[in-house]
Amino acid sequence: MSRRRLLGTAGAAGATGLALGAAAGAGTYAASRPEPAMALTALGSAAVPFYGAHQPGITTPLHARGHLIAFDLAPGAGRKEAAALLRRWSESARAMMAGEPASSGDTGIALDAGPSSLTVTFGFGRTFFDRTGLTGRRPAALDPLPAFSSDHLDPRRSEGDLWVQIGSDDALVAFHALRTLQKDAGAAARVRWQMNGFNRSPGATPHPMTSRNLMGQVDGTGNPKPSEPDFERRIFVPAAPPSGTPAWMAGGSYAVVRRIRMLLDDWEKLALAKQEQVIGRRKSDGAPLTGGTETTEPDLDRLGADGKPVIPANAHARISTPEANGGAAMLRRPFSFHDGIGADGAPDAGLLFICWQADPLKGFVPVQRKLDRGDALSAFIRHEASGLFAVPGGAGQGEYVGQRLLES
Amino acid sequence: MSRRRLLGTAGAAGATGLALGAAAGAGTYAASRPEPAMALTALGSAAVPFYGAHQPGITTPLHARGHLIAFDLAPGAGRKEAAALLRRWSESARAMMAGEPASSGDTGIALDAGPSSLTVTFGFGRTFFDRTGLTGRRPAALDPLPAFSSDHLDPRRSEGDLWVQIGSDDALVAFHALRTLQKDAGAAARVRWQMNGFNRSPGATPHPMTSRNLMGQVDGTGNPKPSEPDFERRIFVPAAPPSGTPAWMAGGSYAVVRRIRMLLDDWEKLALAKQEQVIGRRKSDGAPLTGGTETTEPDLDRLGADGKPVIPANAHARISTPEANGGAAMLRRPFSFHDGIGADGAPDAGLLFICWQADPLKGFVPVQRKLDRGDALSAFIRHEASGLFAVPGGAGQGEYVGQRLLES
Repeated sequence: MSRRRLLGTAGAAGATGLALGAAAGAGTYAASRPEPAMALTALGSAAVPFYGAHQPGITTPLHARGHLIAFDLAPGAGRKEAAALLRRWSESARAMMAGEPASSGDTGIALDAGPSSLTVTFGFGRTFFDRTGLTGRRPAALDPLPAFSSDHLDPRRSEGDLWVQIGSDDALVAFHALRTLQKDAGAAARVRWQMNGFNRSPGATPHPMTSRNLMGQVDGTGNPKPSEPDFERRIFVPAAPPSGTPAWMAGGSYAVVRRIRMLLDDWEKLALAKQEQVIGRRKSDGAPLTGGTETTEPDLDRLGADGKPVIPANAHARISTPEANGGAAMLRRPFSFHDGIGADGAPDAGLLFICWQADPLKGFVPVQRKLDRGDALSAFIRHEASGLFAVPGGAGQGEYVGQRLLES
Repeated sequence: MSRRRLLGTAGAAGATGLALGAAAGAGTYAASRPEPAMALTALGSAAVPFYGAHQPGITTPLHARGHLIAFDLAPGAGRKEAAALLRRWSESARAMMAGEPASSGDTGIALDAGPSSLTVTFGFGRTFFDRTGLTGRRPAALDPLPAFSSDHLDPRRSEGDLWVQIGSDDALVAFHALRTLQKDAGAAARVRWQMNGFNRSPGATPHPMTSRNLMGQVDGTGNPKPSEPDFERRIFVPAAPPSGTPAWMAGGSYAVVRRIRMLLDDWEKLALAKQEQVIGRRKSDGAPLTGGTETTEPDLDRLGADGKPVIPANAHARISTPEANGGAAMLRRPFSFHDGIGADGAPDAGLLFICWQADPLKGFVPVQRKLDRGDALSAFIRHEASGLFAVPGGAGQGEYVGQRLLES
């Protein structure tokens, strides 16, 4: 993240230079493509490193555009084919994240553009381990999530042997990565499901601001911050995993992915005050109904003049606070989705909810259990698909993602 | 466009100020929303004027995000209801393009963001005129397009009484406009079809560059330029329309909309040299196969060492040149689309082709007729939906779009 910020700042200076007619160089990117040797702006030139203790795309700031794609290994493909695939994928991801063309038969879709903060993140689903003869290395944390009473899950759009998350601040760069990785899959794996998402474009709002979702709600206020002392511990498996967690998950994390459709036609009929009661926060700025600013702690005990809690008992913000869930914390890093008009005539839109945690049983599950029982928001949303993936630590130089699982 | 450029430049200076810690003001936008009074970047603060001789969204630079939505008037709704709807829509479009909340019950989705170059463009389909008792004012140019042999049109996703094009450089600002205008439709009109599209993010490439499509091809090279002397005449109906063109179309244009699916699985299997033969241009930079740069005129008569034309007889670039079509010129201003995996297992992706011309019979039709017969590209694309819309001139101060049709 710090490198991205650094490049972003350098790029901003370059962009200003360009606006003034100066010929600012684009650094490493200019060297990797022959022409045109023109300066990119901060958005285009921003690059996220591929190698590291953690995979990219977890603590990377929200991307303007994203693709989620799940694959199942092809019949007959096993550990060897999976290892070769992860090796191909890692090399393509490394190249594209550096703004280089993919190694073989690049489609050209990303030509002219910089990496635009592209990240590619790889995960393994529960079914991957039996199919590759690696059942003994499957983390217990991949045990199926409990069924929630409000679930309306479509199994064809849920789970999968392999999961890839692609994010970029440019839609064509993201699409290029999607097509490249699909091509890399070759005969080894088949697409199971694929979803597209988006967030605000960098620069549409003053920085930094918490994002909004398609209900118009400030979304992400309670996220743990990298500056907090227990951030790493909550989001990532330690470098020396605790007993019961396989060694190959060192530096890894678990992603829970939920396609949450928003019943916008119903939601938008609610008056603003009612919406704020459902959420427990002001819509304008995300502050708790008990006052202050977005980052003020909600006063959950405060009663109104009518003797009722100012933040209602079933308000989303009350039920989902870490305080109400034994300190559970997950890092939510979602995309909005909008797939046009659904078969029911209503917008097929909502949130591709993605949350990251060192342990789903301490992160997602206790919160969702409480939301499932008593969240006022549940009348306006529908969980339509679900996935749980073990996301190994980042690759070291010369390594590929998942190598410690597949080759040790 | 010049105002947008101006705001963009001012915004860029503001963004730099922000990066350096200075508190730059965001001009008109800051005044229209109470808080936070922070500087927006160039992207967020850019605003396109609503009022003018032409509607916005025609010569506006390509937007990063767009929505197309067609409506049919509800049973029982006629001229009066249509006029009231266009008045509501125009007021909402004016407000949102200025970065103001929509007048009633704003969803809040665009809060915090600037207008981000939002444009809203309204058009009338052929069927609108009978339903509103205005058959006598229907332009002859709205006569149905000829059937093309390669068409695979879905009537449920084609045509419509009313058409709205929304574009913005921020996806949430665009979605906010979509939901607002749908809500404004109320009981007067029902959604017929809706499509989402995208282009490069501003700043992903050095400016200015011609865009690429999802085939990786530079797309838009031959577009007429506003600096050319006959640009206005080719794209817009004159302020004093010629005889046979109704007076209410003064300053208007005709939009042809085609959902063109790209058969990417087939296309990407073609070797680069074969792809370049299909297009007639180099993929790397869009230059004609006869050499030069993107803007070099193709040498259509040049023969290669094998005695064959360097630019093949069926190359897309040869068949679609204005020179080969009696000087026909249209302004192509498309969005790419990607709706995930299609029912056939292939990517449901391609181009929301939108072209603008003063007369479709001189713009789109002759070119498409030639492409339909002999374009090498046609094996890799499929026209799946089509629409033809009369887009009236822009509203004057205090006027609504279409008022000259509906009230005079």
